[in-house]
Amino acid sequence: MSQAIQHNSQVMMTRHPNFLRTAEALRPALSRQAHPPIAVVEAHADAAALFGWRAEPVSTLAAFYQRELSSGDSVIIDFGSHYVGYLHFLCQSAGSPPDAPAHLQLTFGETLSEVCEPFSDYQGWLSSSWLQQQDLWLDVLPAEIDLPRRYCFRYLKVEVKAVSRKFRLQFTQIEVNAVTSASGACPAATTSDPQLRAIDNVAVLTLQNCMQEVFEDGPKRDRRLWLGDLRLQALVNDVTFARHDLVRRCLYLFAGHTREDGMVSANVFVQPDVIADDTFLFDYSLFFVDVLYNYLQSAEDMATARELWPTARRQVELALTRCDASGVVRDSDDWWVFIDWQASLNKQAAAQGVLIYCLQRAIWLAERFEPELAVSYRQRLQQLKSAALDALWDPQQGFYVSGARRQVSWASQIWLVLAEVGTPQQRREIMRNLEKNPPAVAMNTPYLRHHYIAALLQCGLRDEAIAQIKAYWGAMVDYGADTFWEIFDPAHPDFSPYGSKLINSYCHAWSCTPAWFIRQYGL
Amino acid sequence: MSQAIQHNSQVMMTRHPNFLRTAEALRPALSRQAHPPIAVVEAHADAAALFGWRAEPVSTLAAFYQRELSSGDSVIIDFGSHYVGYLHFLCQSAGSPPDAPAHLQLTFGETLSEVCEPFSDYQGWLSSSWLQQQDLWLDVLPAEIDLPRRYCFRYLKVEVKAVSRKFRLQFTQIEVNAVTSASGACPAATTSDPQLRAIDNVAVLTLQNCMQEVFEDGPKRDRRLWLGDLRLQALVNDVTFARHDLVRRCLYLFAGHTREDGMVSANVFVQPDVIADDTFLFDYSLFFVDVLYNYLQSAEDMATARELWPTARRQVELALTRCDASGVVRDSDDWWVFIDWQASLNKQAAAQGVLIYCLQRAIWLAERFEPELAVSYRQRLQQLKSAALDALWDPQQGFYVSGARRQVSWASQIWLVLAEVGTPQQRREIMRNLEKNPPAVAMNTPYLRHHYIAALLQCGLRDEAIAQIKAYWGAMVDYGADTFWEIFDPAHPDFSPYGSKLINSYCHAWSCTPAWFIRQYGL
Repeated sequence: MSQAIQHNSQVMMTRHPNFLRTAEALRPALSRQAHPPIAVVEAHADAAALFGWRAEPVSTLAAFYQRELSSGDSVIIDFGSHYVGYLHFLCQSAGSPPDAPAHLQLTFGETLSEVCEPFSDYQGWLSSSWLQQQDLWLDVLPAEIDLPRRYCFRYLKVEVKAVSRKFRLQFTQIEVNAVTSASGACPAATTSDPQLRAIDNVAVLTLQNCMQEVFEDGPKRDRRLWLGDLRLQALVNDVTFARHDLVRRCLYLFAGHTREDGMVSANVFVQPDVIADDTFLFDYSLFFVDVLYNYLQSAEDMATARELWPTARRQVELALTRCDASGVVRDSDDWWVFIDWQASLNKQAAAQGVLIYCLQRAIWLAERFEPELAVSYRQRLQQLKSAALDALWDPQQGFYVSGARRQVSWASQIWLVLAEVGTPQQRREIMRNLEKNPPAVAMNTPYLRHHYIAALLQCGLRDEAIAQIKAYWGAMVDYGADTFWEIFDPAHPDFSPYGSKLINSYCHAWSCTPAWFIRQYGL
Repeated sequence: MSQAIQHNSQVMMTRHPNFLRTAEALRPALSRQAHPPIAVVEAHADAAALFGWRAEPVSTLAAFYQRELSSGDSVIIDFGSHYVGYLHFLCQSAGSPPDAPAHLQLTFGETLSEVCEPFSDYQGWLSSSWLQQQDLWLDVLPAEIDLPRRYCFRYLKVEVKAVSRKFRLQFTQIEVNAVTSASGACPAATTSDPQLRAIDNVAVLTLQNCMQEVFEDGPKRDRRLWLGDLRLQALVNDVTFARHDLVRRCLYLFAGHTREDGMVSANVFVQPDVIADDTFLFDYSLFFVDVLYNYLQSAEDMATARELWPTARRQVELALTRCDASGVVRDSDDWWVFIDWQASLNKQAAAQGVLIYCLQRAIWLAERFEPELAVSYRQRLQQLKSAALDALWDPQQGFYVSGARRQVSWASQIWLVLAEVGTPQQRREIMRNLEKNPPAVAMNTPYLRHHYIAALLQCGLRDEAIAQIKAYWGAMVDYGADTFWEIFDPAHPDFSPYGSKLINSYCHAWSCTPAWFIRQYGL
């Protein structure tokens, strides 16, 4: 997730040094593994291929190492899968001694389109600085190059912009030193369904490549710890790499720098210092409660949960102040809650669902650490659920409505089902109704799609969940995805909430949850 | 000097490890000095200014450090003089925490035009890789940047290609760490003439900025040790920094890697290993004799001169094989001798002059180290001089002619005068005749212009020499030159032998000799 909105507000923030020290002590070592490319490819226009580009192998790596490149030569190198890491290469001159620098331009792509469509044409809303490229001038040959920046790519385009007429350039070794903190052994997939197994593989690689010094949302963009992504990554981590220490570190990072009133930020910067972003979102802050509760269940680490409980409780307290007297979350027009990338979505009802969902987790935590609070929270939970049914339920339509215009959306149904509002029977009917009478305000991101699958499984609609996983994540696999994408609309694969598919992240944490569904529910 | 000609010949070369070890032991330490910029300037089109661009100061450095730069912002920073070194800067973000990399583009210019006219328009014949630029992506702010490449510049254009809308970029320190091996104190200028003093200053800075681990021809381009440049630099070095050890090192570098038959190359690469280029030029190889003789005179280092005498002698032996039976150097159409950047110039007569000039130096060396050879060399000298007068002198025109078409050029006169062919009276008349009846085939480079001044002074035409120095190098100073240029035609300041003024070197060794004339001749 990346927002293109400018904040000018001066938010007063508070540092919690003890928490930050704990987070720092938990900084993981990264494992490092070298991978050579698998081939040199050519890109061909192909309407049937993802984004209109198809890769065709044209040369082996051995043949490429024999090739002498002159000014204007350009090759696309295919590493065979998605990697996050550091490019290393050796090159030398052929011909006379090099009498001028060698000017190279490198372009890195998670997808083939990124190395085919010129970045100079980019007109999206996010900073073009995310587009991965580097010019190099090699003054001395042979040269051993270790690029200092971390890149995220499968494809590398190498363009020889200029050598002199007296020499050519020859690569003699090229590899990516891939890094991850997901170094623990991951249990093999449990499913016997070949399509689900393929989906699981891609999902696990997605998580692995996002696991760095924190759980990053996407290793290409934003390379950052977002609470909404962390929540889903922690689930998949439980059933794969089980690096609970990394979840713990991330919890302390969010707790370590808060708004003066105690609200945790939607995301945290960790370089050069830990700084919480000045973006605060109703749902993301509340998810601190859910991540902490889930961490306690998985890691059985009472000490951490006890220490961070006041931070979690504070998110609930602040969220409850947004409710009106009847217990309905107040709507507004600013960017106050995330839910989905969806400009037309009214988010009131879904926010009500998130609040109820997280309040339930807060109650379970309070039962352990502050039982006297649990009593009042349980009353509040009932009030919020009743208010949702009173104010938001439309029995005629069989759907919840949201906002002054009583909008019907997928998101509203999904979140109020997940919040266990209404009877199990009612919830199951809503999920069936979504299929029969799909609301126009649909799901845009794999992130909301995750909650849809979760709601289906919570309602016991196992076959429907499997079908939806296959239809959605399976379609990405069919498109050749090595890792799952930030954005995917099967009807419009080019869609980007940022105005250009080039800037989308194609390895994105919030898309990796099929591995959790498959393993947790034994699909 | 840089040649755009492709050589495919496989030349057999020989290494002389003892010589290379001596050269390596003489590698100089570089002094390093930090210099801040003096102002931020704006470039204005101005037909009266050099290359049509005039710099106008618009902000102090202190004001620039206050400025917050956004995407699309561009500034030109003026360091106030010409520097060779490493850019160092500090920058930080302003606004929200930086949520995207900061993408900067840096362009370095010895002249203002290099930062005003887009490199993408460059269509010259030399590799565009010489154009000095660098893109940077800063992932973490604040950042302390030390660019690894050495640049050569007065002007630095900083373009903020992209930040996000949430933050701006602010520079807090910027400087160049200038490097040179000309660390010895340089005696003050001796002249009382203010214009000559100004010329001397620029000449000394030109030499200083070319003095690195070797005497480079130009620190922007080719950054390389050429024998023709070394010869002139060594002269100026004698009367300024007196780093005779650097001259000695360069002699051993040329002697350390020769063609199998002993010919020294026109230039030598020193990184990553010492490798002589596969360019061999009649005049440049012969100049080894002159540089060695001059070194012996200046440094009084008999041991080195004795050790390198066989290398020097070999250049004469090889050059003499190019003479026909009468003692005239044979002409040819390939790129066999340099003399000047001048496609229309026939170089036979000038080459005859270079041979005679260097043979005279060889005789002086032979008198010390191989007296029996001096006798035969003296006979050969007389033969070559007579042959020049017989075959090349045209008494009707009062000029030497060159080649089958009997071309009259400045170069032919200059070199046969320097060779002391004919009587002193005849030589002086030739120099006067050049002024009265200037040949159409003129002088293109400061390099040939140097030999013109030398010939004037050798003929005792002191006032004419001063006038010519003022007219030529003085014009560069009037154009605002901080250092003297590789190429300068007062009638066509835009002229480039490479098809674009952007690629010309504007700090070039072979232009620094006014300091020698002024100091050596007490002008």
